Amino acid sequence: MIKVFAPATVANLACGFDVLGLALNEPGDIVEVGLNDKGIIEVLNESGVALPLEPENNVTTVAIQAMLDTMKSKQGVSVVFKQKIHLGSGIGSSAASSVAGVYGLNELLGRPFNKTELVTFAMEGEKLASGSAHADNIAPAIFGGVTLVRGYNPLDIVEISYPEDLACVIVFPQIEVKTKDSRSILPKEIPLKEAIKQWGNLAGLVAGLMKGDYKLIGNSLHDGIVEPVRSMLIPGFYDVKETAMKAGALGCSISGAGPSIFSLCQGLEKAAEIAEKLRPIYKNLNIDFELYVSKINNQGTKIIP
Amino acid sequence: MIKVFAPATVANLACGFDVLGLALNEPGDIVEVGLNDKGIIEVLNESGVALPLEPENNVTTVAIQAMLDTMKSKQGVSVVFKQKIHLGSGIGSSAASSVAGVYGLNELLGRPFNKTELVTFAMEGEKLASGSAHADNIAPAIFGGVTLVRGYNPLDIVEISYPEDLACVIVFPQIEVKTKDSRSILPKEIPLKEAIKQWGNLAGLVAGLMKGDYKLIGNSLHDGIVEPVRSMLIPGFYDVKETAMKAGALGCSISGAGPSIFSLCQGLEKAAEIAEKLRPIYKNLNIDFELYVSKINNQGTKIIP
Repeated sequence: MIKVFAPATVANLACGFDVLGLALNEPGDIVEVGLNDKGIIEVLNESGVALPLEPENNVTTVAIQAMLDTMKSKQGVSVVFKQKIHLGSGIGSSAASSVAGVYGLNELLGRPFNKTELVTFAMEGEKLASGSAHADNIAPAIFGGVTLVRGYNPLDIVEISYPEDLACVIVFPQIEVKTKDSRSILPKEIPLKEAIKQWGNLAGLVAGLMKGDYKLIGNSLHDGIVEPVRSMLIPGFYDVKETAMKAGALGCSISGAGPSIFSLCQGLEKAAEIAEKLRPIYKNLNIDFELYVSKINNQGTKIIP
Repeated sequence: MIKVFAPATVANLACGFDVLGLALNEPGDIVEVGLNDKGIIEVLNESGVALPLEPENNVTTVAIQAMLDTMKSKQGVSVVFKQKIHLGSGIGSSAASSVAGVYGLNELLGRPFNKTELVTFAMEGEKLASGSAHADNIAPAIFGGVTLVRGYNPLDIVEISYPEDLACVIVFPQIEVKTKDSRSILPKEIPLKEAIKQWGNLAGLVAGLMKGDYKLIGNSLHDGIVEPVRSMLIPGFYDVKETAMKAGALGCSISGAGPSIFSLCQGLEKAAEIAEKLRPIYKNLNIDFELYVSKINNQGTKIIP
């Protein structure tokens, strides 16, 4: 068996709804993957986090099955979850689980598939988890760094370079926000004027990341479309945002479908400082929470000892 | 008197509606600018192209007046148009006129203003011409190259690097499309799904330009929002597009509000080849037309001998 680390990821990044994402150094899933001769995909859970283990409800099984189907293979695969990102946290928990299995299996089989192909298999897991086969968490989980899903027909993943000391704070208030719910409250139509603002900011964010221009990154991290709607599902959101921005974050918005909230910052030290200022907010609201401080993960999913 | 060249510009670039633009080496306005002691802004037209010369209807006068008002100056200025881009061509004719005057005056006064400040003055000319003070032609006309207008509050112009041999073909069918009309037919609301596709492509285009990745540039040059509506105002549009794409253009769409159509290509030679294939289209439609083939202008507005 080999041991795989698949990172948590932040999708959307304010102005990049459904297309941008980045990978974190922590938290992440740690999963052991091996071949078996039982001809079935077997998932064991030693992570301490409750996971659906029935094959049809488990994203890892579904993703691995998609890979095996493409190979027309009946290979048996064993997966053991050793460490698991909280489900429903909005930092790509289902993506990490979907990715870990196919990444490990691909390694064991001598890498028959490239990273973009692995994304397509893992997307089947996302489809199970959220009802839509999106890649904005899967892509950064596999590639690492910041990724753009330019489009799906065909799947086109673009790696976006970024300044080396870009760091991220995640605060995860432990309330339940289902991805399906947080999708259904989105407007079907948006004003063209708002869309223009949003794509101006997204273009600015991509340019800012590639230039390493922190001022431009900060000026671009706005979301006038999704954040105003989804933030209503997250108690304390505007407290967190105001506190993070006052403490010097480049920007702060909802991670994926929420409830986690991310702040981007220049340097790990600044990120740690902001995290400490956020700590009292959910304490005062009597909501359990977790805090993560991380540089951007530049490796993506990987084998670990 | 000094002589100023202000280039034609292509706004929107398919997926970058209202935010992206680029400058061409030709055509352009050539304008002489001088100071006078009459205390008035005097515009003479020796270009052979009909221009409104009443101060309240002339974009150059309005832009210069905005600059003088900021300086609280009553300085007299003389402007002589020697060469003029066709009005209503969709390649930034009003922007070039607005820019030429303020650029020349700024030079004569020892550069009291930076380029971004010049953009704000020239935007007053655009407001007169089209009813909205947009900067997507003004910015590339002044800065050269490819520019992003990230936002207006405050005005934030981002220079986007691009591969050195990027070239452009413009075909300008001489029909009248008023910018005000081509704005009024745009939808006020757009489907979120379409907006996501568009901003995925815009992010891809910016990344492709900055990486010098022609494949990504080509894959990103799509517009599912404005082109399907505005193309109805341009006879022959889909003939031009199909012909250009078959001949190897990276992408082809409407320049600004039209009726000009631009094709981006790799290399001037390819651009010239595409131009020749476009030539018969408007001949057969019995519509007068002009063709321009140009590399991207990397200098913007400049003093010429």
